[in-house]
Amino acid sequence: MASVDVPVALLGYGTVGSAVNRLLQEQADDIERATGHRLRVVKALVRDLDRERGFAPDGGVLTTDVSEITGDPGIAVVAEVMGGVDPAGEYVLECLRGGKHVVTANKQLVARRGAELFDAASAAGVQLRFEASVCAAIPVIKVLRESLVVTNVHRVLGIVNGTTNFMLTEMEGGATYEEALREAQARGFAEADPTDDVSGADAAAKMAILATVAFNSRYALADVEVVGIDRITPLDVAAARELEMVIRLVGMARLHDGNVDVRVGPALVDRHHPLAAVEGAFNAVMLQGDAIREITLEGPGAGGIETASAVIADMASVIGTMGTGFLQNDPVWRNLPRLEPGENRSPFYFNLSVVDRPGVLARVAEALAEREVSVARLLQHQNGDGAALHVVTHDTSQGRLDEALAAIAAMDEVQRAPLPFPVVSERGVAELGWA
Amino acid sequence: MASVDVPVALLGYGTVGSAVNRLLQEQADDIERATGHRLRVVKALVRDLDRERGFAPDGGVLTTDVSEITGDPGIAVVAEVMGGVDPAGEYVLECLRGGKHVVTANKQLVARRGAELFDAASAAGVQLRFEASVCAAIPVIKVLRESLVVTNVHRVLGIVNGTTNFMLTEMEGGATYEEALREAQARGFAEADPTDDVSGADAAAKMAILATVAFNSRYALADVEVVGIDRITPLDVAAARELEMVIRLVGMARLHDGNVDVRVGPALVDRHHPLAAVEGAFNAVMLQGDAIREITLEGPGAGGIETASAVIADMASVIGTMGTGFLQNDPVWRNLPRLEPGENRSPFYFNLSVVDRPGVLARVAEALAEREVSVARLLQHQNGDGAALHVVTHDTSQGRLDEALAAIAAMDEVQRAPLPFPVVSERGVAELGWA
Repeated sequence: MASVDVPVALLGYGTVGSAVNRLLQEQADDIERATGHRLRVVKALVRDLDRERGFAPDGGVLTTDVSEITGDPGIAVVAEVMGGVDPAGEYVLECLRGGKHVVTANKQLVARRGAELFDAASAAGVQLRFEASVCAAIPVIKVLRESLVVTNVHRVLGIVNGTTNFMLTEMEGGATYEEALREAQARGFAEADPTDDVSGADAAAKMAILATVAFNSRYALADVEVVGIDRITPLDVAAARELEMVIRLVGMARLHDGNVDVRVGPALVDRHHPLAAVEGAFNAVMLQGDAIREITLEGPGAGGIETASAVIADMASVIGTMGTGFLQNDPVWRNLPRLEPGENRSPFYFNLSVVDRPGVLARVAEALAEREVSVARLLQHQNGDGAALHVVTHDTSQGRLDEALAAIAAMDEVQRAPLPFPVVSERGVAELGWA
Repeated sequence: MASVDVPVALLGYGTVGSAVNRLLQEQADDIERATGHRLRVVKALVRDLDRERGFAPDGGVLTTDVSEITGDPGIAVVAEVMGGVDPAGEYVLECLRGGKHVVTANKQLVARRGAELFDAASAAGVQLRFEASVCAAIPVIKVLRESLVVTNVHRVLGIVNGTTNFMLTEMEGGATYEEALREAQARGFAEADPTDDVSGADAAAKMAILATVAFNSRYALADVEVVGIDRITPLDVAAARELEMVIRLVGMARLHDGNVDVRVGPALVDRHHPLAAVEGAFNAVMLQGDAIREITLEGPGAGGIETASAVIADMASVIGTMGTGFLQNDPVWRNLPRLEPGENRSPFYFNLSVVDRPGVLARVAEALAEREVSVARLLQHQNGDGAALHVVTHDTSQGRLDEALAAIAAMDEVQRAPLPFPVVSERGVAELGWA
């Protein structure tokens, strides 16, 4: 096939956008070998033409007028790398309606306005790809949509926020929450206002997208139950270590009996589980399905050049499949109900600080037994004047556990309301052998 | 796009072939949603029509006559799942020459006859895909070719043989080599004759394919340096534990200053390295490149349904890209020289059993220093009448180390020739933070 320049445009020319332009130029031969084409950035939307830029584009490429992109019928593919929901969403819609394929790195946009964007893409017969919106260069969207097409993925477990994973790894090394946050800020992993990361909101947007693609049913940010890491104490970290586990902020999406549950929160992960090996600012996603048992993808979940690499891979995939009908649709084709609140099941861990008085353990055990919450492991040790109890339950519903914990919290001897964490230990298969 | 049945054929109808047919039927809706088409097996080549089969195909599908497949112009895509180099190679060549796209799960075929097969595919303008030939359902070929198109991958590290990984994990738990092998055979991971696995030959074929795809330069089985696991002793395993490492059979392909080195052999892997977390019969491949730092894919590296899932993903990708020019070429477009023997560099580990006599340590240290091999860690402890020395070197060339070890082996005090293992500890980046 003869090489033809494909004119592309960028919405945004910050860290990611300039890296896209640089890689498209430096790796033009590689892209041509894969696709038969060279991609050339002809326009890039910015707010300020005069700002200094790391990799300056050719003269005339930068523009502050989006209509130079949306209104140019010669531009076939647009990469949205500006971030934010407004005005990025309107610009993307305009591009799609105008018959341009769009690649986006914007998780908030896909998690919040996915339905509308895919409708516009379908109506115009163009593609919308979004690999870079989840975990940067880790190709989890492509793997889910293309490699695992017949595998019935029923569970997605992920460490999808590098900032909190870095902080939790620091806390394992002995740091307090505050020290870990300061270190993350000093290294540039956490913003001055870290709320989006530590609250779990960033992870929730990514899990909404992963659940949507894995289960082919739409989940938005609002469908995800979220607990942040800001209540984790060194006591929790030490208890996890004693149980041969580590604390991680884990995203879990599960399809069970036709119902879907998507949540993000701190969990205790068994040391031998692949997610326990994810350290520092890295991300990992484990996909469990019928035909594959489990596949785990690990790598850097952020970074300008990593994100740019994923954006370009999506552009190459668009070029490589235009007009064939392959994956040119909304991944969503069904509407699965959410699991009822409290119906999600897991083994759980919690700890209690109790006054050391005869009969306390018996009363705690009774409160659990009455709700049919069965205890798998129990550790008790002295803790100043009182005792600390560490409890791991067997698989149970969160609703029953919450009832039992409310009853326990009401006891005079219990010094603070216990906070339960799900426990991640089982693998996708009973045994890690051949099927 | 209107749904059209695509007639496909299978060369072979054993465990993998029957699983392909079953998944194509059971997951036909999923495949149609992704590709716009339904794939229907119209012919399957077998040796014996009358054998009992788990998932029996429709009447008339099985045939013992390959010309019913190669000679049928209606068949667009053929999956080779029969294994072996002959006659599979001839059949695949005939299909390609006849204008049929081919998907193969056959690592020996791709590693030994890749050049010839890709030439035939190019000449006929059809695709040859081979995801299932390396690590079954782990989509490492697709990720390398499509997701990492602009990342300049320069190093591939892999645990690509489940049998030996299972055995080494068993040895970590205290088993001898013989016990580990018996357990692997009892569980069906190892053949009655385990040579292909324990010698490293199976892993070498996979690494030849991975190096070829990662570096776009042809490597055949004969280009891979191979050391098996049969010389690993419980002493080595215990020493690794003392150094906070584990022993794994690691495949390494590296592009360094324009030269390529591909090898398979036992290595000591730092406990915090992602490959150390790969336990039992699982596989993992770590890809290091400029734009991605490192991405690791882990999962089951074998199994009938896992392999079938990868075969079907390749078929879907063929359907989805036919005629677009996307990845329809040989991955090879350059010819990089092999690194000279002995020029490969790494930190290394070796242990010595020495007679406990004054001056031995000094002579060993001198033999290393003379060849500029610098010691990073040294442990010495009593071992019966003598002493055991455990040495970890800094980065050095294997040639220099081998010279030093030959001199050491010649010393009267040294009781057996030392066996060096490369040490895997560095990550793809100096620091696991944002770039």
